[in-house]
Amino acid sequence: MPKIQGFAAPDARSPLAPFSFVRRKPGPEDVLIDILYCGVCHSDIHQARDEWGGAIFPMVPGHEIVGRVAAVGTEVTRFAVGDIAGVGCMVDSCRTCKPCRDDLEQFCDRGTAWTYNGTEMDRTTPTYGGYSTGIVVPEHFTLKVPAGLDLAAAAPLLCAGITTYSPLRQWNCSPGDRVGVVGLGGLGHMAVKLAASLGAEVTVLSTSAAKGADALRLGAHAFESTRDRATFKKLAGHLDLIIDTISAPHDYNAYLGLLRARGVMVLLGVPPQPTPVAAFSLITRNRRLAGSLIGGIAETQEMLDHCARHGIVADIEMIPIEYINEAYDRMISGDVRYRFVIDIATLRG
Amino acid sequence: MPKIQGFAAPDARSPLAPFSFVRRKPGPEDVLIDILYCGVCHSDIHQARDEWGGAIFPMVPGHEIVGRVAAVGTEVTRFAVGDIAGVGCMVDSCRTCKPCRDDLEQFCDRGTAWTYNGTEMDRTTPTYGGYSTGIVVPEHFTLKVPAGLDLAAAAPLLCAGITTYSPLRQWNCSPGDRVGVVGLGGLGHMAVKLAASLGAEVTVLSTSAAKGADALRLGAHAFESTRDRATFKKLAGHLDLIIDTISAPHDYNAYLGLLRARGVMVLLGVPPQPTPVAAFSLITRNRRLAGSLIGGIAETQEMLDHCARHGIVADIEMIPIEYINEAYDRMISGDVRYRFVIDIATLRG
Repeated sequence: MPKIQGFAAPDARSPLAPFSFVRRKPGPEDVLIDILYCGVCHSDIHQARDEWGGAIFPMVPGHEIVGRVAAVGTEVTRFAVGDIAGVGCMVDSCRTCKPCRDDLEQFCDRGTAWTYNGTEMDRTTPTYGGYSTGIVVPEHFTLKVPAGLDLAAAAPLLCAGITTYSPLRQWNCSPGDRVGVVGLGGLGHMAVKLAASLGAEVTVLSTSAAKGADALRLGAHAFESTRDRATFKKLAGHLDLIIDTISAPHDYNAYLGLLRARGVMVLLGVPPQPTPVAAFSLITRNRRLAGSLIGGIAETQEMLDHCARHGIVADIEMIPIEYINEAYDRMISGDVRYRFVIDIATLRG
Repeated sequence: MPKIQGFAAPDARSPLAPFSFVRRKPGPEDVLIDILYCGVCHSDIHQARDEWGGAIFPMVPGHEIVGRVAAVGTEVTRFAVGDIAGVGCMVDSCRTCKPCRDDLEQFCDRGTAWTYNGTEMDRTTPTYGGYSTGIVVPEHFTLKVPAGLDLAAAAPLLCAGITTYSPLRQWNCSPGDRVGVVGLGGLGHMAVKLAASLGAEVTVLSTSAAKGADALRLGAHAFESTRDRATFKKLAGHLDLIIDTISAPHDYNAYLGLLRARGVMVLLGVPPQPTPVAAFSLITRNRRLAGSLIGGIAETQEMLDHCARHGIVADIEMIPIEYINEAYDRMISGDVRYRFVIDIATLRG
């Protein structure tokens, strides 16, 4: 049984603190990974503070994991000791239901086993995430991290990367498409890089005019301030696809007005309250409002391979594990460009 | 200049009454149609009572028109005197912008010329609809009504038919697909017939349990009462596509929960107020909420040809023009199965 050092939230109100635990013994289909880096996702904060309800404590957050394979089960064929591997938001699913067969393990009819704040498929063993020195994951849920990517900066691809890549692929983002990215944070900055890499003409829409230069550096072709109401007139009917990464309350109808006929706006963020949608906003020009949740395992591997081909990783600020609570505070105030990544070496002491 | 007898709303508060007017002189591209039948759409009431704002009076409603060609311009090639022709919601558009070139004339960048309560493309000549003895329409906006269809019952295809056919085609409704039709009125009853003709397994969802037998007669495979909350549990994750024809306030989130992964709910009705949408309703299972507005001219012709092949028309109650105000009252109370059609012979006296 691998002994693990981690950092955990003991309850919804306390800061994260050191936590030691044992992982389950690797089975024949499993891969044991020594974790090198783990990205810090905004959903780590929501869950550690039980803002979505149903949190399981103690909680070891983290689902943007890159590490080195330390052991493999007898039936593992795609990984060998020493390989660089990644783990995202899922560590298991039933693998037989229709969504699983359709490579949508995140919608497993029997309930996906999330990387943390969940349970294994036995529904009793709690799962612990990547703020830890090691993890045991079935081969099917282990990703190959292609050579050539900076390993720390690649970690956020496992959630922020696939979360933005999947809707671009679902809606067939193609060269010349006009893509709007709403919000320039952890998700938004990946959406810009990925949409640009697919040949799209990218416009960043943000309340924060100070991010204009960053938007262009990241690959956007234009930046528009959403505090300026003229933006909504200027871009009316202009965009093919909008990737909306905002979790704060905002008016979907205003953004829907920017879409051309049959254009699509994809929600990735979850505002605290439902948002009023006027039917006319959608009926006019046959517009679509969609949601998207991460991506399946096959699509995640496709995304990693795409990123390797295009040299895409996240813009990160590396931190030691002891900094995690301050990092959370800074994320809440939007003070990170654009993703914290924990150097897990600082957990090994 | 063709002299026309019609019925018009003189203002937003008065009943419709006889109104004589002159149509523009047919030009070389125009078709002059002697109107035989005109369906009565709920939007006729909304507009005659200026419930959407900007109404132009006197208003001759009616955009579900079937008639006989009485004259054709010198450049008309597809129609001859005596042909049976149809006119729907549009009588002109710029025909050069991107939406027009994409066969989406209803989204013309320069503004579609609606069949009534609008103007011709000169932006000054008012348009008058089908509660009248004749109409002049450019050939491009004139539909061929295939032989074999009952002409009175075919009239509602020009709006109710295309409005429900288009979203089924946009979302690739295919044999075996599970389609939910929400609301069984003028639009809903066409949605049932058309979805069934495309091979779908149709479930009607309605507050009105009395319509259960009708639903099955129209071609539905199942009927579920939406007053029974168990319906939403029973059908959770079951449907591929929902055609929502309801204009009364209702909870989109409850219906979105009935969709499978990547399922689509299409709004055709416009509730009086915006409807709160929870981002989780869409993000869970990558669901989509779309709108759809009638359909382009090419798709309308495709729909008519499809209906002829499958023997599909509306279920109608034929009325004389003098009954129109009472018909409006009955429509508002939901007392019609499922479409009033005016026998325009009663206008010729």
